[in-house]
Amino acid sequence: MVNPFFKNNGPLNISDILKILDINSNDVHDNEDVLDIKDLFTSNKGDISFFHSKNYKDIANNTKASFCITTENLKSELPKHCKALIVNNILVSTAKVTAKFYPNSINDNYDDSVIDITETQFKDKVDFGNNVMIGHNVTIASNCLIGHNTIIEKNVSIGSNCSIGSNVIIRNTLIKNNVNVLDNCVLGKHGFGFFPIDNKNIRYPHIGIVIIEDNCEIGCGSIIDRGSMSNTIIGKNTFLDNQIHIAHNVKIGENSIIAGQVGIAGSSILGNNVKIGGQAGISGHLKIGNNVEIAGGSGVIRNIPDNSKVMGYPARNIRDFLKENK
Amino acid sequence: MVNPFFKNNGPLNISDILKILDINSNDVHDNEDVLDIKDLFTSNKGDISFFHSKNYKDIANNTKASFCITTENLKSELPKHCKALIVNNILVSTAKVTAKFYPNSINDNYDDSVIDITETQFKDKVDFGNNVMIGHNVTIASNCLIGHNTIIEKNVSIGSNCSIGSNVIIRNTLIKNNVNVLDNCVLGKHGFGFFPIDNKNIRYPHIGIVIIEDNCEIGCGSIIDRGSMSNTIIGKNTFLDNQIHIAHNVKIGENSIIAGQVGIAGSSILGNNVKIGGQAGISGHLKIGNNVEIAGGSGVIRNIPDNSKVMGYPARNIRDFLKENK
Amino acid sequence: MVNPFFKNNGPLNISDILKILDINSNDVHDNEDVLDIKDLFTSNKGDISFFHSKNYKDIANNTKASFCITTENLKSELPKHCKALIVNNILVSTAKVTAKFYPNSINDNYDDSVIDITETQFKDKVDFGNNVMIGHNVTIASNCLIGHNTIIEKNVSIGSNCSIGSNVIIRNTLIKNNVNVLDNCVLGKHGFGFFPIDNKNIRYPHIGIVIIEDNCEIGCGSIIDRGSMSNTIIGKNTFLDNQIHIAHNVKIGENSIIAGQVGIAGSSILGNNVKIGGQAGISGHLKIGNNVEIAGGSGVIRNIPDNSKVMGYPARNIRDFLKENK
Repeated sequence: MVNPFFKNNGPLNISDILKILDINSNDVHDNEDVLDIKDLFTSNKGDISFFHSKNYKDIANNTKASFCITTENLKSELPKHCKALIVNNILVSTAKVTAKFYPNSINDNYDDSVIDITETQFKDKVDFGNNVMIGHNVTIASNCLIGHNTIIEKNVSIGSNCSIGSNVIIRNTLIKNNVNVLDNCVLGKHGFGFFPIDNKNIRYPHIGIVIIEDNCEIGCGSIIDRGSMSNTIIGKNTFLDNQIHIAHNVKIGENSIIAGQVGIAGSSILGNNVKIGGQAGISGHLKIGNNVEIAGGSGVIRNIPDNSKVMGYPARNIRDFLKENK
Repeated sequence: MVNPFFKNNGPLNISDILKILDINSNDVHDNEDVLDIKDLFTSNKGDISFFHSKNYKDIANNTKASFCITTENLKSELPKHCKALIVNNILVSTAKVTAKFYPNSINDNYDDSVIDITETQFKDKVDFGNNVMIGHNVTIASNCLIGHNTIIEKNVSIGSNCSIGSNVIIRNTLIKNNVNVLDNCVLGKHGFGFFPIDNKNIRYPHIGIVIIEDNCEIGCGSIIDRGSMSNTIIGKNTFLDNQIHIAHNVKIGENSIIAGQVGIAGSSILGNNVKIGGQAGISGHLKIGNNVEIAGGSGVIRNIPDNSKVMGYPARNIRDFLKENK
Repeated sequence: MVNPFFKNNGPLNISDILKILDINSNDVHDNEDVLDIKDLFTSNKGDISFFHSKNYKDIANNTKASFCITTENLKSELPKHCKALIVNNILVSTAKVTAKFYPNSINDNYDDSVIDITETQFKDKVDFGNNVMIGHNVTIASNCLIGHNTIIEKNVSIGSNCSIGSNVIIRNTLIKNNVNVLDNCVLGKHGFGFFPIDNKNIRYPHIGIVIIEDNCEIGCGSIIDRGSMSNTIIGKNTFLDNQIHIAHNVKIGENSIIAGQVGIAGSSILGNNVKIGGQAGISGHLKIGNNVEIAGGSGVIRNIPDNSKVMGYPARNIRDFLKENK
């Protein structure tokens, strides 16, 4: 992923990375540079990656990464040009290294770079309300509206003909054209991802962004978290009602309709033309096909194939559910 | 409905309406005026209406409307004085004509008419916080409080002894007396109503308002959408907890108690003295009787008669549910 | 409970209390002072308490209170030094007397004591955004961040190394160290507690506070209500995701993880190391043990013992639930 918003702090010296990982290795040249941290598939020569599950064996066999955080058990799957860095906890170690490359991607402290829109280049170009604030690295195309008290924090790009409501907070988000974001939304904060450790959880970095494609509407009070290593995406012409929760790494297809108070947990992927009734919930890491209809109040805990209609908790075929629940 | 807030842009010339509908008719005098668009029942001479289902046959037979958007199949039900305008998609066509009469009822862009309350007539009459904004056509009676950063957009009427919290946004809403609206609420935005069309959904107008009767409390972060062709109503002395979602056209009776995170979908009608537990959901277009109790977490998908207690998803008799689920 | 935030308006003269309760008693000396209102257990000499259920008989037998609101049926359980004040409705009467001692604990009107942070002692000590407001009786320790438009109302204490987001509203809350409160949260408002009375409900006072222990994170748009007679507590290193609702008097233990849109009803007590999936709901007045896992979407209506995993509505053993719902 070429990251448009999170600035890579690299190259870092491998000796600094070894220190973070508490590794004492003679196997590595002290002065070697590491360019970036990426997943096994997208890594190139000079990058560091991580390999934590046999499921990714085939990708590991072919990675171009020069370094890889892994365990003694898994290291034999890596190609010769990729030096294994052996650790106890791959995910915690990866989080630590990612934090070194992307130090600004962990916490979402308020953006102190913002200034009043009247002091920016946008003052003659955008139609804006009172008390609107704009951060660094923001672009806004033609014919946009931004409501009162709205904060466009750093790393936001807004296309043309967009209407952003009042009391909205946006960061690390790419909004295409003709998008409506209604009042009180929060877009682009980090996801609910961390390593649970007694007395002091460790957050892992979120270097993904939120992408909202053309013609979408995001209802009042909805929250869309940015991705950790990939992006959170709302497809073209998809409409979200009020008070919706979209967790990190979720991808929703085109022409979908999602009613009020729906929650979609992390990393689930939805197809096109999906309809979801109010208060339905979708567990994490699921795949929901195209043209799927999920009845209001359902709890989806398994993948759903294309063209299905489901209802219930756990959600199943809607005709079966209604027959059993006359 | 005499609409207190949405200004009727009419009369419009019938020839302009025919152009919108892409109708080429010799049956209609070019220079006839059309006063307003209303439903079949409330239309008067000079108005245009719409007729899209045999269910409304009896009302159609007796409508006073001078014009009616309908189909070839249905037109024979209309009285002689009512000229049928034949279209393919009645609802889309009706939306287009309504948009012409009420152009400000479709989108909820931020209100650029607001000014700081210190520059208004209310500055000596209302007790207000910092950064309070007031739009056009707002009335506020005696002894009211308005919290910090709250935006009273255009078309709002607030009775006496009301306490509005901070970070609240209100538009197109009629609040009676002794009402508390707590922090972060959004009242009066358009509902989640539109015609799904690939690549570019079409919003239909929302010319209804929100009415909150005497002695109500609306909890923090709750969102109440205004109606499309009728109003959204919260009855006297009804209390809503936090994070509640009330969709467009919903009507809730008096003395009701609705716990946190409840969602009520569009056009459902609730009686008096209804109690709803936390996170319960009610589907759209249902009728819930008086003195009904709905247990927390229930999903109501059918009408509920007076004096019932229900639980489960789908919600059914609470004793049956608990017996089956010991 | 020594109340750090709600100022006791006492001592009150007993004759004034009798007037509130509409009691005409010769049994009581007119000029006696009453110091405070407390529960039966914590009351001391000079205090007034209330006794409304045989369940509390043993505590009533030993109360040190000098006065007690109760009924004819229950009064014989009180010790001789405690004068029974006989009323029809104990809870309503108690609410009225509590309101007299703590008149500021009933309504949450916006805090008109706040001033811009730049006019306070915190201006050189805290890192803050635009339009930050601070009320009376606020303390903020070292190394804290407070985001844009955030309102720290009266009676708030914030420890060191805390990051408060933007558009946050906090009142009557004690935040310890290293706590993150994300954007749009509302902490410390009164709970959804009142006596339902036709045409005009009566709120009872909420003199409890919210306590957030070290190392917690509270996700965007979450709402945590303060307690009525006890406190609402979030234990050490507990992380809450977005849009969560925590009702009054709830106590959550340490090292717990609560996913998005969860709702916990009033007075439930959760142990340590509890994991709750998205959209799950927990009814009021329940006891959830240590190391409990509650699957997303579950509805918990009964106590759950330590080390259990539950799922479903009503929530039951997760293996049973999944077996029945293959």
